[in-house]
Amino acid sequence: MSRFLSAEAQRLAPYQPGEQPGEGFIKLNTNENPFPPSPAVAAAVAGRIDRLRFYNDPDSTALRAALAAEYGLKPAQVLAANGSDEVLAFALRAFCGEGEHRALAFPDLTYGFYEVWAGLFGIEERRIPLKEDFTVDPDDYCGLGCTIVLANPNAPTGLMLPPAQIERILQANPDNVLILDEAYADFAPENCLELLRSYDNLVIVRTFSKSRSLAGARLGFALASEALIEDLARVKDSLNPYNVNSMTQAAGIASLGDEGYFRRCLAEVCATRGWAAGQLRRLGFTVTDSCTNFLFALHPALPGAEIAAQLRARRILVRRWDTPRIRDWVRISIGTRQEMETLIGALQEILAEAKEG
Amino acid sequence: MSRFLSAEAQRLAPYQPGEQPGEGFIKLNTNENPFPPSPAVAAAVAGRIDRLRFYNDPDSTALRAALAAEYGLKPAQVLAANGSDEVLAFALRAFCGEGEHRALAFPDLTYGFYEVWAGLFGIEERRIPLKEDFTVDPDDYCGLGCTIVLANPNAPTGLMLPPAQIERILQANPDNVLILDEAYADFAPENCLELLRSYDNLVIVRTFSKSRSLAGARLGFALASEALIEDLARVKDSLNPYNVNSMTQAAGIASLGDEGYFRRCLAEVCATRGWAAGQLRRLGFTVTDSCTNFLFALHPALPGAEIAAQLRARRILVRRWDTPRIRDWVRISIGTRQEMETLIGALQEILAEAKEG
Repeated sequence: MSRFLSAEAQRLAPYQPGEQPGEGFIKLNTNENPFPPSPAVAAAVAGRIDRLRFYNDPDSTALRAALAAEYGLKPAQVLAANGSDEVLAFALRAFCGEGEHRALAFPDLTYGFYEVWAGLFGIEERRIPLKEDFTVDPDDYCGLGCTIVLANPNAPTGLMLPPAQIERILQANPDNVLILDEAYADFAPENCLELLRSYDNLVIVRTFSKSRSLAGARLGFALASEALIEDLARVKDSLNPYNVNSMTQAAGIASLGDEGYFRRCLAEVCATRGWAAGQLRRLGFTVTDSCTNFLFALHPALPGAEIAAQLRARRILVRRWDTPRIRDWVRISIGTRQEMETLIGALQEILAEAKEG
Repeated sequence: MSRFLSAEAQRLAPYQPGEQPGEGFIKLNTNENPFPPSPAVAAAVAGRIDRLRFYNDPDSTALRAALAAEYGLKPAQVLAANGSDEVLAFALRAFCGEGEHRALAFPDLTYGFYEVWAGLFGIEERRIPLKEDFTVDPDDYCGLGCTIVLANPNAPTGLMLPPAQIERILQANPDNVLILDEAYADFAPENCLELLRSYDNLVIVRTFSKSRSLAGARLGFALASEALIEDLARVKDSLNPYNVNSMTQAAGIASLGDEGYFRRCLAEVCATRGWAAGQLRRLGFTVTDSCTNFLFALHPALPGAEIAAQLRARRILVRRWDTPRIRDWVRISIGTRQEMETLIGALQEILAEAKEG
């Protein structure tokens, strides 16, 4: 820290990203997709290189049109950004602050970045504990009188609140925005897109990072009423208007155009998830009912830190947190079937050694 | 604007980007490079597509190493970002705010985004008029007791304060940061890189958008002391840690590796600038001594709005502002020699018609 750092920046507590090691690891720690992006992406990006001398379209017009078509909305109901992290940052600046809408409510166990942005923008936090079983109690979010952000499905629990319950929260908060972080929704049996037709206080945030294998391209987007999207664009244009580079815009459009590939990859990840969850339970793990591309698991005999360390020694990375309530859990991204077989084999060994030791 | 918009976001006055039209225009309005990026860029980007399923390196390690080598600095003295706009936003959050370093000083005529970020972060502005001839008076920036941002060369004037004068400002402000926006420095005869060795209160901000033909890839960077870079990283990691996608990281490294192409393009732009400035003066324009890839020009007989409109009717775009002091000026990016010949021909016609009319 330099002697010039502002008081505001001194107060920041930056996000700690998951480890990004070199080659030679089975990477099950940052919820990446085990499959490469659609083959259509390479050609689309290649076609943009010579025109990189021009600024990208700051409004991501063609990409937003493609997203609008995909979700049956108007392009003016879509905002694109440099990852869904950027969308969420815009949303918190737009819908939290001084006065009536100052505070931000979110669960005690959820995506770790919400509190970081609250710190960045000086937003008061209201952390609401998940129930004992890690589910959200919608009653906790009724009549709070502040902005709400919910990851649904939630991370790292993998659990999902059904759309009818989300609707109850929307109805109980007509004068406040609910930001619904649906980063993992493509892996879930349901989502809340339909609610956009009826509620003007809903912002849905999505990403190409998980289900579309484009984590490294950075592409997220918001879906909401035209008025809310205009608000988000106001923040974008006050921070970084040319936020989505033109290669990423092209990659996103190409990915959306290859529906078959998308569906096949999704089906495979979900099938592998079911297989891996069964195997983990067979090994004695408690595993939540994941609606995502990861599993959240606890073993009665071995703490999470031990499991993660032993796996790391075998070149397999998973994620865990030194956080109350989930200290002993591990979060395991869904890899290929083969990667998950290697994982299960490794866990079997680790548990056997622990029993002997 | 929705009824949910925060008071902070209501106060924002978003930046207005220059027009990005479709094909069929000679685009001399946003200071893009007339040449495509180095041929090495296409191969480097293509090599990253299959690995887009992985998150990009949030620290842009390889790119920062390449930049450090280019400028004779340590990698820890470099921060990469999603365009230099993002670097500047990080710097203003890091070095302006409450208390002693609250305010931000900048010229009355300069890059229009400084005031937008000041609004976003609630930073008090101190606008300091340029001299009558549009030059910066270094005395105006001595002993201000606040953070300073100077574009050098400045936009839209194209004029440059020599490094010795910048050094005076640094010496006179040992307890405040000078953010030097060197977006156009590659087109200038001198720059302030050497001052990084002696001053711990200097942040130099640069971009691949202009001199490296990568505007659409979004890549900017900061060069400074390790402590100041750590401060900038703190803000980055509190806003959007994975800020530079992996295609852009690869493009940047490839561009830095092709020094010969870079030098040839620069030389051509500078030669064309000299030719075009001479032609404009021949037509009666006052033209500032540009150290950038644009010309700033005033004609005694025709207001800037008229010139811009007449050029637009001929499918040539230039930029101007409805701002006191420069209302009648136009800013003309340097295109290819052929594009500039077309421009000069068009201006000749426009001026002749004005004389007749």
